[in-house]
Amino acid sequence: MHAYRTHTCAGLRASDAGAVARLSGWVHRKRDHGGLLFLDLRDHHGLTQCVVAQGSAMLATLEALRPESVVTVTGEVVLRAPGTVNAKLPTGEIELRVREVTVQSAAEQLPIQVAGEQEFPEDLRLRYRFLDLRREKPHRNLMLRSSVIASIRRRMIEQGFTEFQTPILTASSPEGARDFLVPARLHPGKFYALPQAPQQFKQLAMVAGFDRYFQIAPCFRDEASRADRSPGEFYQLDFEMSFVTQEDVFAAIEPVLAGVFEEFCDWTGTRRAVTPAPFPRIPFDQAMLEFGSDKPDLRNPIRIRDVSDHFAGGGFGLFEKVTAGGGVVRAIPAPGAASQPRRFFDTMNEWARGEGAGGLGYIAFEAGEAKGPIAKNLQPERVAAIKDACGLADGDAVFFAAGKPADVAKIAGKARARLGNELGLVEKDAYRFCWVTDFPMYEMNEETGQIDFSHNPFSMPQGELEALNTQDPLTIKAFQYDIVCNGIELSSGAIRNHRPDIMLRAFEIAGYGADVVEARFGGMLNAFRYGAPPHGGSAPGIDRIVMLLADEPNIREVILFPMNQQAEDLMMGAPAEVEPARLKELSIRLDIAPPKGAAAGKAP
Amino acid sequence: MHAYRTHTCAGLRASDAGAVARLSGWVHRKRDHGGLLFLDLRDHHGLTQCVVAQGSAMLATLEALRPESVVTVTGEVVLRAPGTVNAKLPTGEIELRVREVTVQSAAEQLPIQVAGEQEFPEDLRLRYRFLDLRREKPHRNLMLRSSVIASIRRRMIEQGFTEFQTPILTASSPEGARDFLVPARLHPGKFYALPQAPQQFKQLAMVAGFDRYFQIAPCFRDEASRADRSPGEFYQLDFEMSFVTQEDVFAAIEPVLAGVFEEFCDWTGTRRAVTPAPFPRIPFDQAMLEFGSDKPDLRNPIRIRDVSDHFAGGGFGLFEKVTAGGGVVRAIPAPGAASQPRRFFDTMNEWARGEGAGGLGYIAFEAGEAKGPIAKNLQPERVAAIKDACGLADGDAVFFAAGKPADVAKIAGKARARLGNELGLVEKDAYRFCWVTDFPMYEMNEETGQIDFSHNPFSMPQGELEALNTQDPLTIKAFQYDIVCNGIELSSGAIRNHRPDIMLRAFEIAGYGADVVEARFGGMLNAFRYGAPPHGGSAPGIDRIVMLLADEPNIREVILFPMNQQAEDLMMGAPAEVEPARLKELSIRLDIAPPKGAAAGKAP
Repeated sequence: MHAYRTHTCAGLRASDAGAVARLSGWVHRKRDHGGLLFLDLRDHHGLTQCVVAQGSAMLATLEALRPESVVTVTGEVVLRAPGTVNAKLPTGEIELRVREVTVQSAAEQLPIQVAGEQEFPEDLRLRYRFLDLRREKPHRNLMLRSSVIASIRRRMIEQGFTEFQTPILTASSPEGARDFLVPARLHPGKFYALPQAPQQFKQLAMVAGFDRYFQIAPCFRDEASRADRSPGEFYQLDFEMSFVTQEDVFAAIEPVLAGVFEEFCDWTGTRRAVTPAPFPRIPFDQAMLEFGSDKPDLRNPIRIRDVSDHFAGGGFGLFEKVTAGGGVVRAIPAPGAASQPRRFFDTMNEWARGEGAGGLGYIAFEAGEAKGPIAKNLQPERVAAIKDACGLADGDAVFFAAGKPADVAKIAGKARARLGNELGLVEKDAYRFCWVTDFPMYEMNEETGQIDFSHNPFSMPQGELEALNTQDPLTIKAFQYDIVCNGIELSSGAIRNHRPDIMLRAFEIAGYGADVVEARFGGMLNAFRYGAPPHGGSAPGIDRIVMLLADEPNIREVILFPMNQQAEDLMMGAPAEVEPARLKELSIRLDIAPPKGAAAGKAP
Repeated sequence: MHAYRTHTCAGLRASDAGAVARLSGWVHRKRDHGGLLFLDLRDHHGLTQCVVAQGSAMLATLEALRPESVVTVTGEVVLRAPGTVNAKLPTGEIELRVREVTVQSAAEQLPIQVAGEQEFPEDLRLRYRFLDLRREKPHRNLMLRSSVIASIRRRMIEQGFTEFQTPILTASSPEGARDFLVPARLHPGKFYALPQAPQQFKQLAMVAGFDRYFQIAPCFRDEASRADRSPGEFYQLDFEMSFVTQEDVFAAIEPVLAGVFEEFCDWTGTRRAVTPAPFPRIPFDQAMLEFGSDKPDLRNPIRIRDVSDHFAGGGFGLFEKVTAGGGVVRAIPAPGAASQPRRFFDTMNEWARGEGAGGLGYIAFEAGEAKGPIAKNLQPERVAAIKDACGLADGDAVFFAAGKPADVAKIAGKARARLGNELGLVEKDAYRFCWVTDFPMYEMNEETGQIDFSHNPFSMPQGELEALNTQDPLTIKAFQYDIVCNGIELSSGAIRNHRPDIMLRAFEIAGYGADVVEARFGGMLNAFRYGAPPHGGSAPGIDRIVMLLADEPNIREVILFPMNQQAEDLMMGAPAEVEPARLKELSIRLDIAPPKGAAAGKAP
């Protein structure tokens, strides 16, 4: 018989009754029932009820054992009495009558309980993560993460992608303000950096002639923690393809994302619908108009409409003035809201003021009438046209935001989200994907009046060199796209600019001379001078995908051994002080600034 | 038609003749043949011959293009004339008659050639790795690496293992002299360390209740480079299992290794035999005796024998004295060597002296006689007994090494390797695996006379606490094992010591008090106090596996973007100097020692 187990704790069934079995696991719970000791034994796979007979010599040993001790038990598999069968447990029809027990590891008093639903402070959970992970939900979350990553890998390979490991000790990126640095012992005074992403390496892999690269890539960013961003390290599905258009990138990755979400969409116990491929493509301008956001949550059915024309010269003074001054008026439909009490409309208005907007006008369509101050001041045919443009019916209402397009988009987007939630319109149990495309290449810097890159300077401008040379820069779109799920940006991506001539011109428009570009980005630029293929890709965040599937709002719930929000590993005690001799070897020493506000400071 | 390609450069066949196709790729070679321009177009997948007609308007464009420029060509697929079919090329039956060409990226003069077999200095190759990787062999090596890793992953998952990502920013290990350190910006004066291996994390994953963990794990070691060790980072197949004996570990990983090697054993074009599972298990003591090494190369058929008894009191004075003094005499058979000239034996002897041994005696069995000085001085029945013990026949020879067991094992092992090579006995085209088991837990430190751990202090001693309390420590074996292939250690592994009481006692024997152990290894020890399962694992080196399968002696040949031997990334320019402001943020400053021997350093 095996030293530790003939079966896992999830393995025994009624058909095993009569057999002798051996199990090993953790003492999940103990109960004394009229002299019989019941012991729920737990391992990675499941739970089995074990029973120790009255008067057994083992009772003393087992009674002294604390929960979470590890034992090996051997005994006969017996059917439970009909009334005591546990239908919820795969092993619920049997129990193990223990003949022999070996204590493999006696547990001390636990700092956090494993059995039960009790909540514990996060820092305590992280300090004893090895206990926390024994609990059902964290254990399941991490198994989900593994399964998701394995599924992604399988699907990427099926799509013809090849996984490569790119360097982790590398050079600081040109914009590397938030790089972690690593002193190079062999090169005093010099430092490696940990990659914020393998962006340059994956592009170089394309220049090196590989066709479809991917990597479940560890990335490092020395930034403050957020709920959806772990301090320090995170993982992304980094991929890149050669000789592709934007549509080819979409077509390659959509089946992977849709497939993974379909595969795990009922992990939490509720089946969720998944957008089938191809995902909707929404140009940036349209997204800003209809959703007031470049991260549209498509579970919300509300679509914002531009109704500026209906107000231009239309009698409602405030909005007329806005449109006359080059501003816009946007309508945020509120389906079914006409019957809401006056307070509902007032609260929306107050909320909008709290958000810094001028307030939200509204019209409510009820019993064939259009109600509210705006309707009173607007020609009825204009009111009817607005109703029509927004697809509204009797019983619906509509809010209006007016002002500069960017400001209006922002408040209208927020109002849309709020109305969707308040009116219970947001689709539940669904993963709704879309691509946001055609991001502007440049934007006007309001402060300096100069032209800046609006997103990624390394994306290919649509229209390439000709567009750069002939179009108003603010009208140029880039081959840049985001993948969004339920209003969460999983990733940016782009068709890259692989042409040094186009890159230099693109930077020139944003005010960077060739010398600056060569100095800062010379590495990539040079590589592109020896034959570079057109290429593009993206890098959906793995942690965010798992968070969505696990329905966990906190990224630490889907990481095996996460750091806390202060970027500390409480279990391992990192970061930690280091012996001066080690620093000497690395040719560095400490240079700790006195705490801010401390007397002396930098004052005279 | 797709903007870049209807087919890859490996896709067109005779059956496509007559179709119009579009290809994109690199200009591999150009040849002018009587006014026709032949152009071999290459992509990740293969090569297609393209032809541009005499007098074509495209000729000027293409003639001006340097090799490795990227172009898109469109044209008709035509059958090659019978005499010009290239049977070596999958596309060798056709060529593309170019109607249209688009230059995607014009290459400048190349620093290293892609086409052809020319060799280039390694530093030049690494600086232009994106060009180097376009060459056939590096490209194939990296594809092999990816395929091997994908295969390992698939096989590990089939074996019930789950992949987890363990932290990369973590704490310095207790023995972390060669850890890379990372200053923690948010914690002035403190540092993270990059893991030399996820050893503690994988054990904690077992303590956390996961059953079978694995990871293609990035590991970091700030050590000098060697041919088989990359400076900086390397990858291992890190795995760990709970509730297992040593044999369970072997049984889990053998099908993975044997399977991967079977799958790729003919990658280089020559099919190699692979040891089928189960692999031979060779106890450490036997390995040291029979192979003179704990990394036996089983392709070499020679087995060393202990023949001390045959020399004890046997008349050959030198060896008699050795055995009387507690030393040993070992025989290294040299099958078929009897007919070698005298010079062969003398050279062996000289070589052994060069290795620091006292020399090698020998006997040659030829024509029914035993020749050589030893045979002359030893009783014939003893000579016969040695012949018998070593399994020798007429025509064979045997060498002898005598002295202290450890010294003799060493020189005998080297002589075995040398004889195997010189006599052409080493099996070619084979991957021969074995486990070396039962490593000693302790060894005597010759200098201090104290008992030290001989390998890993965290392995479980065989016999557990009882052995520690009752046995001579030098006789205690550990549940520790190495996996060896062709004489190369792929990995150490062990059944771990999961019991704090046994661990404290084990350290006590090696002279460490409980306070020291708690201070240095308290983290793991504490985790083991809350219920730890018996567990064990190993971590075969991925880079070494790929080196074996690619038949490359240099690890940099199987890494996508390797550092050079000075731990520099010449392509990205890492490590590099950093702006003082960045260091200030990290609360460190440079502290560069003047070069050794430099008078006064910065003196005038």
